[in-house]
Formats: sequence, C-alpha cells, structure tokens
Amino acid sequence: MTRPVEQLLSQLHARFDTASVLVGDAVDPRYSDDLSGKNGVRPELVLRPRTTAEVAEMLRLCNDIGQRLVVHGGRTGLAGAARVEPGEAVLSLERMTAIEAPDREAATIVAEAGVPLQVVQNAADAAGLLFGVDIGARGTATVGGNVATNAGGIRVLRYGMYRAQVLGLEAVLANGSILTSLKGLPKDNSGYDLNQLFIGSEGTLGVVTRACLRLHPKPATEVNAFCALASLEAAIALLGLLRQRLGPLLSAYEVNFSPLYGAMIAGMQAPAPLPAGAPVYVLAEIQGTESDRDGERFAAVLMQAVEEGVIDDVVVSQSPREFRALWDVREDANRFLFSIEGLVGVDISIPLARMAAFLRDAEVAIRTADRNAEIYVFGHLGDGNLHYQVQTSEPALAYDIVYRGVAAAGGAVSAEHGIGLDKKKWLHLVRSEAEIAAMRRLKAAFDPTNILNPGRIFDAAPR
Amino acid sequence: MTRPVEQLLSQLHARFDTASVLVGDAVDPRYSDDLSGKNGVRPELVLRPRTTAEVAEMLRLCNDIGQRLVVHGGRTGLAGAARVEPGEAVLSLERMTAIEAPDREAATIVAEAGVPLQVVQNAADAAGLLFGVDIGARGTATVGGNVATNAGGIRVLRYGMYRAQVLGLEAVLANGSILTSLKGLPKDNSGYDLNQLFIGSEGTLGVVTRACLRLHPKPATEVNAFCALASLEAAIALLGLLRQRLGPLLSAYEVNFSPLYGAMIAGMQAPAPLPAGAPVYVLAEIQGTESDRDGERFAAVLMQAVEEGVIDDVVVSQSPREFRALWDVREDANRFLFSIEGLVGVDISIPLARMAAFLRDAEVAIRTADRNAEIYVFGHLGDGNLHYQVQTSEPALAYDIVYRGVAAAGGAVSAEHGIGLDKKKWLHLVRSEAEIAAMRRLKAAFDPTNILNPGRIFDAAPR
Repeated sequence: MTRPVEQLLSQLHARFDTASVLVGDAVDPRYSDDLSGKNGVRPELVLRPRTTAEVAEMLRLCNDIGQRLVVHGGRTGLAGAARVEPGEAVLSLERMTAIEAPDREAATIVAEAGVPLQVVQNAADAAGLLFGVDIGARGTATVGGNVATNAGGIRVLRYGMYRAQVLGLEAVLANGSILTSLKGLPKDNSGYDLNQLFIGSEGTLGVVTRACLRLHPKPATEVNAFCALASLEAAIALLGLLRQRLGPLLSAYEVNFSPLYGAMIAGMQAPAPLPAGAPVYVLAEIQGTESDRDGERFAAVLMQAVEEGVIDDVVVSQSPREFRALWDVREDANRFLFSIEGLVGVDISIPLARMAAFLRDAEVAIRTADRNAEIYVFGHLGDGNLHYQVQTSEPALAYDIVYRGVAAAGGAVSAEHGIGLDKKKWLHLVRSEAEIAAMRRLKAAFDPTNILNPGRIFDAAPR
Repeated sequence: MTRPVEQLLSQLHARFDTASVLVGDAVDPRYSDDLSGKNGVRPELVLRPRTTAEVAEMLRLCNDIGQRLVVHGGRTGLAGAARVEPGEAVLSLERMTAIEAPDREAATIVAEAGVPLQVVQNAADAAGLLFGVDIGARGTATVGGNVATNAGGIRVLRYGMYRAQVLGLEAVLANGSILTSLKGLPKDNSGYDLNQLFIGSEGTLGVVTRACLRLHPKPATEVNAFCALASLEAAIALLGLLRQRLGPLLSAYEVNFSPLYGAMIAGMQAPAPLPAGAPVYVLAEIQGTESDRDGERFAAVLMQAVEEGVIDDVVVSQSPREFRALWDVREDANRFLFSIEGLVGVDISIPLARMAAFLRDAEVAIRTADRNAEIYVFGHLGDGNLHYQVQTSEPALAYDIVYRGVAAAGGAVSAEHGIGLDKKKWLHLVRSEAEIAAMRRLKAAFDPTNILNPGRIFDAAPR
C-alpha cells in the first residue's frame, strides 16, 4: 500500500465509522464483479456512504490523492462497467435506499441511488401510477445504475429510455461539488440541463445520488398476445399495423427468432403458448384506459393480421395469469442463455429497414467461420434492439462479424447495456474520432484526475 | 477595425463568395434584433454558410482570432440570445434549408438548421406522420433555433419538449470540429449522448447544422374544447380527470386567466367562443386513432365534469373549422399582448400544487407596488408553464416580485424561452453556484475562447 493510500485511509477512518469504510478482509468478494461474466479483483477498499454529503466528502478525499474508484449500484451491468480493476476502490451506493412517497398531482417520485427499480415500480403502483421502465434485473438493478446506463428494457416503445423518466438529479462531481436539481418540473429551460450529462455516461462524469422520476397514469387494462410469424418482414409489418391502428395503446413489441424459442421451450417448466417451428415469434402488449374495450380492439387488429396472412398463429391473454405467463416465456430467454457457457452476446441496434439483410449476412459469415455455430436472437423489435448470441468455437471472429455488420448497417454496438470495459474496443466502429475526442473533453472537464470509473467507455487521452 | 479582424475578412473573402460574407453596408438591419423587443447593434459582419463544412471553416477562422459570434436561426427568440452586441459578428444558418423526405418506416426526418418548423410539420403531414412540437412562431422559427432553445409549445404534455424529438444532431464546435450523429436510432447507448449538450444550451456550446427528428403517427381525430371554470383549482381538477379517463389521448391543455380573455375578445374579429367573465378558461385538445369514437369519449368526460360542477360552460369543436377557430382564440393572446408597449413579460414554470398561492401572492405584491397594474396570464397549464404579463409603471419591481415568487415556489425563471441576455441576472435565483460553475466548466471545455453566443445564459468566469 502506497503512502498516499495510507494517508487516505487514516483520513477516512477519522471521519467515518467501520460500516462505511471496509478494508482488507472486511471486503466481501461480491464487490469484485458484475454480471458481465468476467472476474474482477477483490478491492482493498470499499466506501459505503449513507448520504450525499458523505459521498461528497469521500470523493473529495479520493480526488485529492487521485484514488481511482468504481461506482457500484446493483452490479447487474452486462458491459463490465462495475467490474473492479487492480488499484480501484469501490464506492457503493447500497446504503442510500431512501424513497419518498410519490407526488400524485405532479406524478413524480424522488428516490436515492441505491433504491432497486422494483421498489420504484411498487411505490408508483401503490399510488395508482406507473413507472415507465422495466427490465429483467428489476429486483437488483438500482436507480443510480439505471440512470448511469440509461436503462432501456421492454417498454421503451411507449415510455422512452430511462433518460425520458428523469426530471431531475442530484449528482456529485469528482471534486466533491454537489449538483442538486430535484424540482421535478416538466418544463425548465433555465440554463443548461446538467442532468443529461450523468444519464448514460456510466458513472464517468459524476456519482448520481438521487433522482426525481416521472410517473405515468396506471393503465386500466394490460393485455398481451404471442404470435407466430413467417418472417422478420411480417413482424415489421405487424408492428406498423399495430402502431397505426392502436397508436399509443401499444406498449411493448418483443421478438424471438428461431431456433431460440424451440430451445427455450424444450427446458421450460410451464406449457409453451405456441408450438415451436415458426421462424419468428412476437410478444405484443397494450396498456389502455378502457377496460371494457381495449382488449377487443387489440384482438380485432390481430385477427385482421391473421386474415391478411401477416400472422400465422396467435394467442391473446384472457386473464392477468395468462398475461404474466406470456411475459414469463419472454423472460425465460435469459434463463436459457445464461445456462450456456462462453456465449458470444451482444446488445445491438439496427435500423428496421436493414435488419433482415444484417441478420442474413451475419449468419452466412458466422457459419462460414464455424459451421457448427448456433445463433440465438431475441430483443425489443419495436426499438430496433436485438440481443444477439452465438454459441461458437470462434468467439473473436463472431464478435468481429457482428459488430462490423452493425456498423455497416448504421446501427449501434450498444443499444441499452452500455460500453463499460468490455465493448470499448469496438466503440470506434460507430463513433467518430471527433465524437470520442468530445467525450474526452467532457471527461477532462468534470473529472480531471480521472478517478471516476476510469477506462470505462474510452481510455483517457494520453497527457 | 482592428488588425486581426482585417486579417479574418481577407481570409473569409479568399474562401467564400460575397453572398456568404456580408460586410458593412451589405448587412441588412434585420440582423440586429430578435423578438425580445430590445434593440441590438447592426453587425459589421454576417456569415451565411451553405454547408456544414462551410460552418466549420468559418468557425475555425473566427476561433483563431477570437472573433465573437452570435448564431442566428429565425430570430424569433424572446430572451435576447440572438440580439447582436457590439463587436459581435452574426453566423446565420438561413441558407441551410435542405430537408430530406421522411423515413416512414423509422418515422424520422433529417433537416438542416435553417428549415422553419412549419416546413418540418408539413413534410411530416404529407407523409402521414406528425411532428410533435408546435409553437406560435412556426412559420419563422427554425430547426437550429428550436434545438438550441429546447422549444416547448402547446403539445409538450403529449410529445415532450423539443429534446424528446431529437434522435440525432450534427453540430460544429467553436474550433471547427464536426460532430455528426444522425443515425436516428431510438436506442443507442454507445458512449456519451453528445446531442444532449447542444439542446437548450442556446448556441453557447456549438452550432447545430442538422437534426434527425422523431415523427409520430398522424392522429385520425383532433377535437378541442373551450371551457369556462370558476378557479385554477377547478382547472387542475379537470386536467386530472382528463388524464385519468383519456390517458394519452389528451394532447394539449392551455389556460387563460381573467381579465386577459375579456380584453382579447374585445378586439377580436371572430366571434368569441364563450362570453367573458369567468375567472379561468381552458382549451383542451385530444388526438386519437378512432375517428368514430374519440370525440364522443372526450365529450362524455367533459359532460361529466359539467355535471360534477368542475366546468361551468363548454363548447366542443364539431368540425375542422371550429377546431381551428378555437386554436385561433388561443393564439390571439399574442396579438393582444404584443400590442401593449413596455409590458413586463415572463415565461415561468410553477409546480401545480403551488400555483394558486403563487398567483395570489404575486398579484397582492404587484398591486401594492402599483395599484393600477393589469396582470395578464395564459399558458400551458398541463406543463405548469405560465406566460405572465404585467402592464405597470413599476416594471423593475414587477420582475423582482414575480421571479422571487417563482424561486420560492420551486419553479423556473424560464420554462421554454431560455435565458439569453435578458434573464441571466435572475438565473442565480433558481440555479445554485455549483450548478452555474458546472455550466462554466462545460462552456470552457467546448468553447475555450468564448466566441459562441458569449454572455448568453451566464457570463464567462473571470480568467
């Protein structure tokens, strides 16, 4: 341990109790990793502030000696942003879990960074409101991590990304300066909107400590349907039809390509909603205000799509239990895919108009490199966001094929998971040198000593 | 003219034609002012690039000698951001008016900075789509100015601010570096979202040259209603009822307080939709997908509100002509108010829960300062955004009373017009020193020579 670190520890111990500053053997191994599947190192120091003022004090002390930090929320990230690298301490927001009662008139809620997503969802629900973001890791992922990664998920189509839910933030800069903007006004052009800086910048520009989040009216009806279709083109046509006929009623539009669905249902405990064998499956959902009518409207459009040959087969949920069961099938993709070791997995955006060509070309190239490769694709088709997995003996080639295909199609190498440590070598495929230089300018302006999540998204410029 | 300016002019003349570089008598007086009502100076130099590359070249040359620039779109701003100050040259985007055909499948459109808002609206409409932002200055205000001011207007309730419409931007930094991000992906977490920097920063961080904008399905029905109510509380209750019963159908919710409506209709050419005398008037609008049913649903909720005593009187539009006529009444507020000289006028956000107390307290304080003062208030109640005008012999006192009241209520000194030159002295009432210091950090990082719209929003820090 170097001299400045010893000095930092003595300053921390003088100011904070032992539950706030974990050192050496007191550090649980769980602080090493996130869900990216790679092993981090066990940090020598874990900071666990309880208040924004404590975050500011800790950052100021670390900044003074250049102690690098990795910021931890629920550690459910999939891009390695929270994985600990040698020499990094952890700043965990896990003890900042206060949440205010929702403001029903303004339709807002204020929560600290460590509050799990599901707690926000439940608080909104109990007040007769809805929080617009939902993701599989809802029980563990936190407000702070959701802000830092601009979380996406299954209802972006209707409510937008996490960015669209943020009406205000409190964040602490590397030097300990606290920026508080929690008024929750839907319209505020009084100077720069600094909140935007911290959304999706993966903890590299500041530490989010609190958020004021937008809530929506709770829908009176939720109905979903599971459809078998002959092609991606048919799934895109169905999306257009549902948008045109149902407008904002449409709240989710998920896709699952063959052979993933067949492989999933082979190991699923619950009965499959439709038999395997179709090239494409879609889960569509509506949320409406007229419980006596929305389901019928939805069913009528689906029946029209069957008659017009767009859909080959369909089941529509008839009860909350059936509604939940169809979502369980969707989420079962994760169970199946996490069970396969060493899977190549990417989270990409592709313009709908170029998606079919991208999928065809990528499959040909991957099978040329490895004729035994299996390709599993599902995702949020309504947003052009696919989770594309390859089981292959040639993982490096597969990554290269997919990401270069994405770039050629005008897509994104990360749609919703972020760049973290694991995808930064591909960032240049989709962002220009001028853009990456501008990101470095921002980083240098807000974290000149480069202590916050260093090396995430991009490496600091040589000095 | 100083030596470096002569040098700049010779470099500009060597590279650009005379239509691109206006000097001295060739500068039309229209370049001096915006709509803020105060006189700027006639600039000695006006730059009129035709392409992004030309913008970059011009900025690079100006940056090299520190020539300050004020960026011009449609010059319809109300906060003085485009008003020319001594020593400033003008960079006008008026010749960058190219617009692509909408991409119907992706529901996006790409337009250059000088394209008027109404041209974007019409292009969307012709493709069976809708652009979500509408403001009174639609015929003149441009894409670039709309981005720079994060324009609001009448449909924020449904579609969000201009920020929510921006899927990508092309912008040029002060040093001539071009950032292009026009892929138009609804989901893209591949590194920092740099677009956010340029939205609402009033041209101080870079010059927007192109935008990729989100379009929405065109509604099959548009119906509006004009209501007389007994109080602000009743208007807020009606807003809650419409939101709960109609969900996303509700697309606008505008308010007009006594005595403004009475004063307006006295000079209006068209017949008044309702007699004067009520304390509050509301214009509510729905946009729906079911032309045979939406109007009935809307009318049924309004009738329920009449029966429950929430609304005192109401007319519902029965034809596109009546629909347009009700909107004309709303927009007539500007005709009436622009006809009064020396009016104190502010654009504020107030949380709905504190709006009644704010209005009462401000009126008492203003009448105490000037018992002959007239107060005219209208605005976008669904967003908590009021345009508050005072006809008074004590304008300085009135500004002070209103802005301090706004700050005390947790509101914003600009909801949608921005800060510009004219409101910066009040910015500190609603933004902390730490926040303003962070804005200066951003400005210094992206425009270190302070050439772009200098002194707008805040003054540069002393060096």
